[in-house]
Amino acid sequence: MLQTYADDSMALHTDFYELNMIYTYWKKGNHLNTAVFEVYYRNNPFGIGYTIFAGLERVVDYVKNLSFSESDIQYLREVKEFPEDFLMYLENWKFKGTIRAFREGEVAFADEPLIQVEGPIADCQLIETALLNIINFQTLIATKASQIKSAAGDDPVLEFGARRAQEFDAAHWGARATYIGGCDATSNTRAGKIFGIPASGTHAHALVQAYRDEYQAFKAYAETHKDCVFLVDTYHTLDSGVPNAIRVAREMGDKINFLGVRLDSGDLSYLSKRVRQQLDQAGFPDAKIYVSNDLDAETILNLKMQGAKIDVWGVGTKMITAFDQPALGAVYKIVSVEGKNETMYPTLKLTANASKITTPGKKQVWRIRSHDNKKPEGDYITLYEERPDLQDELFMFHPQYTYINKTLDDFQARPLLHDIIVDGQLVYDMPTLEEIKAYAKDSLSEQWEEHKRLLNPEPYPVDLSQKLYDAKVETIKLFKEIAKDQPNDQSIF
Amino acid sequence: MLQTYADDSMALHTDFYELNMIYTYWKKGNHLNTAVFEVYYRNNPFGIGYTIFAGLERVVDYVKNLSFSESDIQYLREVKEFPEDFLMYLENWKFKGTIRAFREGEVAFADEPLIQVEGPIADCQLIETALLNIINFQTLIATKASQIKSAAGDDPVLEFGARRAQEFDAAHWGARATYIGGCDATSNTRAGKIFGIPASGTHAHALVQAYRDEYQAFKAYAETHKDCVFLVDTYHTLDSGVPNAIRVAREMGDKINFLGVRLDSGDLSYLSKRVRQQLDQAGFPDAKIYVSNDLDAETILNLKMQGAKIDVWGVGTKMITAFDQPALGAVYKIVSVEGKNETMYPTLKLTANASKITTPGKKQVWRIRSHDNKKPEGDYITLYEERPDLQDELFMFHPQYTYINKTLDDFQARPLLHDIIVDGQLVYDMPTLEEIKAYAKDSLSEQWEEHKRLLNPEPYPVDLSQKLYDAKVETIKLFKEIAKDQPNDQSIF
Repeated sequence: MLQTYADDSMALHTDFYELNMIYTYWKKGNHLNTAVFEVYYRNNPFGIGYTIFAGLERVVDYVKNLSFSESDIQYLREVKEFPEDFLMYLENWKFKGTIRAFREGEVAFADEPLIQVEGPIADCQLIETALLNIINFQTLIATKASQIKSAAGDDPVLEFGARRAQEFDAAHWGARATYIGGCDATSNTRAGKIFGIPASGTHAHALVQAYRDEYQAFKAYAETHKDCVFLVDTYHTLDSGVPNAIRVAREMGDKINFLGVRLDSGDLSYLSKRVRQQLDQAGFPDAKIYVSNDLDAETILNLKMQGAKIDVWGVGTKMITAFDQPALGAVYKIVSVEGKNETMYPTLKLTANASKITTPGKKQVWRIRSHDNKKPEGDYITLYEERPDLQDELFMFHPQYTYINKTLDDFQARPLLHDIIVDGQLVYDMPTLEEIKAYAKDSLSEQWEEHKRLLNPEPYPVDLSQKLYDAKVETIKLFKEIAKDQPNDQSIF
Repeated sequence: MLQTYADDSMALHTDFYELNMIYTYWKKGNHLNTAVFEVYYRNNPFGIGYTIFAGLERVVDYVKNLSFSESDIQYLREVKEFPEDFLMYLENWKFKGTIRAFREGEVAFADEPLIQVEGPIADCQLIETALLNIINFQTLIATKASQIKSAAGDDPVLEFGARRAQEFDAAHWGARATYIGGCDATSNTRAGKIFGIPASGTHAHALVQAYRDEYQAFKAYAETHKDCVFLVDTYHTLDSGVPNAIRVAREMGDKINFLGVRLDSGDLSYLSKRVRQQLDQAGFPDAKIYVSNDLDAETILNLKMQGAKIDVWGVGTKMITAFDQPALGAVYKIVSVEGKNETMYPTLKLTANASKITTPGKKQVWRIRSHDNKKPEGDYITLYEERPDLQDELFMFHPQYTYINKTLDDFQARPLLHDIIVDGQLVYDMPTLEEIKAYAKDSLSEQWEEHKRLLNPEPYPVDLSQKLYDAKVETIKLFKEIAKDQPNDQSIF
């Protein structure tokens, strides 16, 4: 049977190499050296032009509660054979670092730091795996929901994916992420309880099959529930399902709210038009048509293009798994580390693929708006100490194609990385889920339409400041020399 | 901040419509009527010919511990406004049904029941969502691992996906599923602790970047760990990484086990051949070459085809998310229900898509082996009471193309659905994870090569018994009449 531990913690929810590295730092006396790590992803998913940053609340919850339990220590002692003095260090370990992050719900873009972790290098390493695990998933799913909601326009979108989610947490946290991204409700009851998301649903085919008689099943449901959406495709949508729904709605009259019917198979464009006629002719013009069945943004766009008479979209598998791209691929890279003489040194990973070379140094991201129309003109990444908000003029240029540039003289610059946890203490006033959802909506609605197009959007500028660019070029040059000059000790520890 | 409940349970980890249906059954006095539901999926994933059934242990753990906590009841009372007498029923509710399932690790195929749940209809409905959530994910990931392991042949495959998994549970249970499917170890330390899977890993680029000097970083690692695999691509694999690894290996001599080097970028075919030469010439012919970087079954096959000198494969994103098909799509369908006169009635969902019509009735699945070679000749689905194992002759035919058939006269028939939980009580002797892993290996190795080919495998026969086939045809005929004959009450309750 499954081994369980009453004192199970998430401290070991980390790649084992993190612990091996922490042991080396600790043994060599460098574990308290300050390091800065940053989280970013390289490409916006699904062919769209942005993401909706999500997962921060879960990160805070994870970090706040993080400590090694007795059974964790026991595992590291018996199976991994770490020495007792190191285990004692772990036993007393708490996260002492600083976490800066985008607000949850912020529209975000490729190649900009969404989270920055600064603190003892051991602390930074330990949380890498879980932090990426959380942010990669929730940002991906909030973004997927945003794409689907864009396709659905003003129509409500319901999250129906629990049974197809990649295990329990994905169903649960995924429901939250889809709500941030624009969904209106979830089928997941526990997500309703924990997050306060509206949990909705009426009945499945099983109810009709259990009664065998569709009319009797609808009737039984109507006699036991005020709000009724009847699922009409168990036997035959047009010949049996809708007529039985209408019959029950008429018989029950004001005793129920006949909200509408749900279609879960067949050609949803054709059927919805026929069903709309049936409902209208029966005197139920306000009854809505709900649909589900492997929907995704593209299916929704196509059904709308064909004039399908669909009012509410139930989306499952394709949204909760981000089916067309089930991983965001965000990474966590060290950008700076404290070496000799208490100096912070920039770090770099060289690679033959120029666009994959990391940008060294601790940074801030600024959203630049023009004063006229308040629309974002681009994001501007600086060294952490720079203050573009105090400048009169801003020169923005493409980080690879530097001849693509512009100068702004009437702008606002708003920093996007906020202090969340400072030296291990939560300093951020966590917003409610409703506030996060509203913020995501605002954050997206202020963007130019051109960056929000679902197909081939115009890329949003994510530029480097001149100082950061120069520092990057200089560091690359330095590291190319270091790489060549191996026999001499270049160690900064 | 995040709302948490000390008494949080998984009882509400269910689609809300299940609770609405349960309320209708309960209010109408049918909630204790026996029903039979079966889980199956419609297509083998990834273009391969089978799946590895996984997740049963988690299902048992979930069902065993399932009950409504005070905060669950409170949510249903305050937010969902269910009446007190129904809440009292839920408060005292425990799962009283019977669960039959394939053994974990069993090779499974499309369109056969992998799990059968029989019991009070309310009990069956409540567990649908979680059960599918578990089985869909773990079976998918065990299968993905099996595909990747097939591509890797005898080479070890390591699971590196935690940071890209769809949230914590997916990382954790996914690691277990990949181990069942054939992986040799995981990077996920907690999966190591809880499941006893070997947890492995050495160091990341961050270690080299933190020291800045690659040689000093390797040296520090080697001075603090016995087993060493050096990651050699932080600066330049051939000019710096491998030479530094060799230098440290020579200096440390017997003080370390120089297991090898890991490549995480660049052209793995070219680099691995060059690195092999470097290691051999330096006198380390036993040092292995580990690789990682977005690997999947097809990449591995291609690298092998090109003669890449790779010994160990670290696979992350593509395996833990089943990137090329991130959902299995298994469904949970009612096949039989107790109606009037304590009779069990078959149930059916009609659909225009003939292949999607469910097969009614409670079933058993038999794996048929020829006596000669012990190879499985196909799976044979029968009514639950049938005993093909006692027959002298077996007539097997394709469930759609019935003219494709064969008669066996020298065969063994082994039932695949085993009693796991009977009337709410665990009766099954749960195997250890090592036993499950070994069983998966045996179960796969007895299959004909033709069904295991990674591309365009020969479909494995999954046939219906004559009796089951006849019952299905008869039930379809009956339901077509029922669907037409709506005004007459066909209710079986």
